[in-house]
Amino acid sequence: MPNKVFVLGAGSTRYGRLNEGIIEIAMNASTDAIESAGIRPKDIEAGYISNVFGVSDRQVHMAPVIMSNLGIPEVPGLSIESACGSGSIMFREAFANVAAGFYDCVLATGVEKITHTGTIQSTTLFSYCSDFFYEGGNGASFPGLFASIARAYMARYKANEEDLARVAVKNHENGMLNPKSHVRKKITVDDVLQSPVVASPLKLYDCCPFSDGASAVILCSADFAKKSGRPLVEVVGSGRGASPAAVQGREDITTIPSSVAAANQAYKMAGVTPKDIDFAEVHDCFTIAEIIDIEDLGFFKKGEGAYAVREGATSRSGEIPINPSGGLKSKGHPIGATGIGQVVEVFEQFTGKADGRVIKDAELALTHNFGATGASSAVHIFKKVN
Amino acid sequence: MPNKVFVLGAGSTRYGRLNEGIIEIAMNASTDAIESAGIRPKDIEAGYISNVFGVSDRQVHMAPVIMSNLGIPEVPGLSIESACGSGSIMFREAFANVAAGFYDCVLATGVEKITHTGTIQSTTLFSYCSDFFYEGGNGASFPGLFASIARAYMARYKANEEDLARVAVKNHENGMLNPKSHVRKKITVDDVLQSPVVASPLKLYDCCPFSDGASAVILCSADFAKKSGRPLVEVVGSGRGASPAAVQGREDITTIPSSVAAANQAYKMAGVTPKDIDFAEVHDCFTIAEIIDIEDLGFFKKGEGAYAVREGATSRSGEIPINPSGGLKSKGHPIGATGIGQVVEVFEQFTGKADGRVIKDAELALTHNFGATGASSAVHIFKKVN
Repeated sequence: MPNKVFVLGAGSTRYGRLNEGIIEIAMNASTDAIESAGIRPKDIEAGYISNVFGVSDRQVHMAPVIMSNLGIPEVPGLSIESACGSGSIMFREAFANVAAGFYDCVLATGVEKITHTGTIQSTTLFSYCSDFFYEGGNGASFPGLFASIARAYMARYKANEEDLARVAVKNHENGMLNPKSHVRKKITVDDVLQSPVVASPLKLYDCCPFSDGASAVILCSADFAKKSGRPLVEVVGSGRGASPAAVQGREDITTIPSSVAAANQAYKMAGVTPKDIDFAEVHDCFTIAEIIDIEDLGFFKKGEGAYAVREGATSRSGEIPINPSGGLKSKGHPIGATGIGQVVEVFEQFTGKADGRVIKDAELALTHNFGATGASSAVHIFKKVN
Repeated sequence: MPNKVFVLGAGSTRYGRLNEGIIEIAMNASTDAIESAGIRPKDIEAGYISNVFGVSDRQVHMAPVIMSNLGIPEVPGLSIESACGSGSIMFREAFANVAAGFYDCVLATGVEKITHTGTIQSTTLFSYCSDFFYEGGNGASFPGLFASIARAYMARYKANEEDLARVAVKNHENGMLNPKSHVRKKITVDDVLQSPVVASPLKLYDCCPFSDGASAVILCSADFAKKSGRPLVEVVGSGRGASPAAVQGREDITTIPSSVAAANQAYKMAGVTPKDIDFAEVHDCFTIAEIIDIEDLGFFKKGEGAYAVREGATSRSGEIPINPSGGLKSKGHPIGATGIGQVVEVFEQFTGKADGRVIKDAELALTHNFGATGASSAVHIFKKVN
């Protein structure tokens, strides 16, 4: 059994179109997390960075640059990449290193800067996250791939475009309450249905935005946590999974095998079931993804996700609130940061910092973040302590 | 004390200008390593990939693509980037995960494809590995930065351009014996001195080439290793370190702090001293780097590295053979693969596969690989078992 691991502090930039350079963005979130944890930079023993397209802002090898800017150039770090799931998969490594006793206190910072490249270049770069030989190289973009997934789901489970739209409406409603959201705009089902078609059945408001931003957390051991005397969040479950890289390699495209595997591992480690989870941050890169996620994570039976959304079960006051932060859809999706941003939301919810959007009496939360069409996933479960 | 970890198999492509795509290159090394280990792909529980510029061959998020191509799409993986040190820093994570008991058998594959972008684009991309705000963005390329380091070293320790050249001559001699070397060409000190100046005092033959290539190893636990009945290599020491990202931030540019820190950790863990090491693969991206490395690693006193090379102490028959594979200088430098390539050399030396270039009676070897000008480093120590 690994050692206990805690989230001691968390910080995030606003997500959106940011003018700062990628290192400044990463620094802003990192220093917020350090301050939130009540530690000094020199308490940090290792740095974990997640990022995908540093090349587009002319900086890779970011860990040493960030550590140097924090005034701790002697602290080793590295970058982890797993497409849009980079943040959670990096979090998993940071967690594993603390759990194994290699470190007592680490910084985990996810960052992305992409909007300056423009929509066409961003879409091109993102397509390199697919199995390029089978997908991107043949013109399959992520909206197109998720449109195929949506069509298959709708056909099999009698869902409709209004069901997809309801996910967007809910997440925009939540995002309105999050001051760091990229797209803070209340929308209706009609707004979604009437927005421009991106890849039918997905319209503009079915798609998350390209965002810049960074999120950071401090992870620590039980001994380190004890000294802090602060409200704490314990990481009680961790799992990761994989699926065939190309969608065409999957037997059933209405489920994401990596999500199922990661969730099962995390539940098993935490000794809990989906029913025990009080709220979840899930990977809603497209509205259809959230519907599939909440089934794959075991919150609803296969084929009942769309119905659950329709009935309000995933709203803030529902049975299992999904994406109280606004999700990728409204909060935004700086791809290297997203998985860490989910943990920031859990930390803020559990430590009295989610002003105006608190999920009442929540004590157990889950984060779920995947790369590409779910080729890689990680799931973590968090418990409020105190 | 962590669990014991072994290298069970290793494979490498030829380094050089390769025509295959980046995934095919990675697959060739991975399948060689799997075959060398006598395992089946389904024995692999996790994949660790190191790569820096996948963007240039239009594929990031490589782990799922490689796992899918190996027929094990359900096996989770991730990519680690730490500039030219990516391979060793990825190896460190793979090692840590097996040492901590998370996995019994993992694949660690480093890969790079860059030559197709041409020299100017490659140099531009590589500059993103520096602290771009202070270095790359102001026109400082790696040859320029290492030229400054060489000037400082030569001035302080009375070394000369012939001393630098001797490193190249030795490594080309070694590389001639390695069928997978990129630059298999015997050269003389005069050839080096008369080659075109890149950034004075560094000439063309003081610089390693841009290379494509992949290297892969299988790491496993003691239990897994026992069942194999094969000759084994144990990882007995592991360390990593960091330096100020920009050279200007360092008090003394004739030493690389991250190398010193990583080596000290690795020696301590292995319970050995530099005198116990029988040969080493070190990071000779430029000839001056090797001279500084062999001092930082404790093989020679500060300021005596150039003298040691002059006296032949680092040649194949010398006191401590350095880079029997040919090193980055002759074997080549596919940046994401280099750190793993060093481990492949150790494995081949220790398991009777280094035909024609065996270091006799060697039982303890060290690998040292860094990113950029040494902002990140990792050092590992290996012991021959049987």
